[in-house]
Amino acid sequence: MSDMKRIPFDEIWQELTRILLASGFENSRAKRCAYIFTENTCDGVASHGLNRFSRFVTEVKTGLVKIQAEPELVRSLGAIEQWDGRRGVGPLNAEKAMKRAIELSREHGLGCVGLCNTNHWMRGGTYGLMAAEAGCIGICWTNTIALMPPWGSHEKKIGNNPMVVSIPRGEDPILLDMAMSQFSNGKLEVLRRRGEQLPLAGGYDENGELTTDPNAILESCRALPIGYWKGSGLALVLDLMASLLASGDSTVEISQRDQETGVSQVFVAIDIVSQMGAAHVGEKVDAVIQDFLDTPPLEGGSKVRYPGQGMLATRRENLRTGIPVEPELWQAIQRM
Amino acid sequence: MSDMKRIPFDEIWQELTRILLASGFENSRAKRCAYIFTENTCDGVASHGLNRFSRFVTEVKTGLVKIQAEPELVRSLGAIEQWDGRRGVGPLNAEKAMKRAIELSREHGLGCVGLCNTNHWMRGGTYGLMAAEAGCIGICWTNTIALMPPWGSHEKKIGNNPMVVSIPRGEDPILLDMAMSQFSNGKLEVLRRRGEQLPLAGGYDENGELTTDPNAILESCRALPIGYWKGSGLALVLDLMASLLASGDSTVEISQRDQETGVSQVFVAIDIVSQMGAAHVGEKVDAVIQDFLDTPPLEGGSKVRYPGQGMLATRRENLRTGIPVEPELWQAIQRM
Repeated sequence: MSDMKRIPFDEIWQELTRILLASGFENSRAKRCAYIFTENTCDGVASHGLNRFSRFVTEVKTGLVKIQAEPELVRSLGAIEQWDGRRGVGPLNAEKAMKRAIELSREHGLGCVGLCNTNHWMRGGTYGLMAAEAGCIGICWTNTIALMPPWGSHEKKIGNNPMVVSIPRGEDPILLDMAMSQFSNGKLEVLRRRGEQLPLAGGYDENGELTTDPNAILESCRALPIGYWKGSGLALVLDLMASLLASGDSTVEISQRDQETGVSQVFVAIDIVSQMGAAHVGEKVDAVIQDFLDTPPLEGGSKVRYPGQGMLATRRENLRTGIPVEPELWQAIQRM
Repeated sequence: MSDMKRIPFDEIWQELTRILLASGFENSRAKRCAYIFTENTCDGVASHGLNRFSRFVTEVKTGLVKIQAEPELVRSLGAIEQWDGRRGVGPLNAEKAMKRAIELSREHGLGCVGLCNTNHWMRGGTYGLMAAEAGCIGICWTNTIALMPPWGSHEKKIGNNPMVVSIPRGEDPILLDMAMSQFSNGKLEVLRRRGEQLPLAGGYDENGELTTDPNAILESCRALPIGYWKGSGLALVLDLMASLLASGDSTVEISQRDQETGVSQVFVAIDIVSQMGAAHVGEKVDAVIQDFLDTPPLEGGSKVRYPGQGMLATRRENLRTGIPVEPELWQAIQRM
């Protein structure tokens, strides 16, 4: 990180807001969308923050992302609602969907929103954290364009369908945010550029051998699903559930387009804190987390961490000292 | 399978019913519980069928499993209900819980039952298939006693917390039924006895190297979670959600007992077929599955399969030709 420049959160937020306003966003939507990109970067997920911002703005310019469109309720099925994202702004659509799931959970104990015809939500964790802040268990996932071969093939056919689970815990929620591929294509490409190897096997080479070489995996197109056949199966059922619950397109339909758009997403909120009481929930969750943190690490290894722990530590550090950004990237953004 | 004896479904079912009646089960509960053990075996999951039956009967005799106990409603939170399993018969409790989740889904679009204080459900897929037969998407999971070290440790601390997702599709539902460990302890023990290796790395040896040697993994206690740190994190959040939704014990509390009992489970049913129509659901699911089945296999490899496909093929074969059982095991059961 020595060649990184540290920039205050608000400075990045203002700069991204300026660009979105210039791209035609209405004022409050520009601010909110810029906030999400800034926060993702602050939380250490620059791949779905600053690193992807220029691509997002291009998608706005080409009309792939329709900045005026707001999601519309299509169908109400009790605790479930289906919304049409109308090819609008992915992060704003997703935020609205999770907000609605939280509202439904106040009424039914549990709320579920299926959102069809939307765009990339950037980081799923954003919406998991929203649920946790509202005292809810949050579960959400999205389908994607085909990114991965199913187990037993080398043809890309299934999405990597990231899935998020969040558990409320005051200022320190638990946040699992994981794709079905062991490593993202973005990660493979970064390491290939740097000439580095993966820490663990992340796919197969052309000879069908497991490898840590990102270049070999990108050439064979055989990225590894988590748990081999298990992640492959989980990606498939997440896609099926998303397209059914959202009444939207599945990966096979999305993949017929030139670019990824019109994806299907699901947002579930479970109103656990107000139903069961903050003290009860806090006690139960803390008992598990405290015991987990007491697990002895491997010899010479670092302490075990629960999902989201490292991310929140990164956020706090970056809020204090500024968000690390590559100077060239920052210059490019300032010129946008 | 050459040394296996093929026994008709009904003959096994009758034999297990006889034993459960002799163990004190009420007639209809004996029949139903025996049916589940028989069906699990028929479906190729003998580890949670015949192979585990004698252990189950022992647990009944020692009072770990209380055969008179029926689950009781503790709390109703809209679409969510919490039930106390009263340390009753795991498979019968689980069946009742999924049945209730399906009923709730008819009313709210989605139903969720948390079941605390219950016993091992044997095969989670049983309850996923129930939901699919009722035209529902089914999601269920259980926590367990600590079986696996979290990522970065060698101390068993997290459960392998099997998770099930089912999608209705007429006679051919999709059924994902997966534990968070890449291979079960049972599988490792079977292969060790046979002196065989795992098909893929399933854990670490004492030197911290990934290995396919079941003996090395059993000695190091470092079975591999699916997707390394991802499965470790997923196991943790499944445990947290189960203990919160069921208001029950978490893996850390369960693991303080000598034997696994008093586990927490969650059953979700989503009433998709009656809400959206059988034709709509069938069309959407078939489009995905047909495309999936068209995926070209690896050179020299077998065709790709969706989750549950192999299981249902096994069921049909075994219903036609009899269920393969080790002759010694069958003799032992007949003597029970």
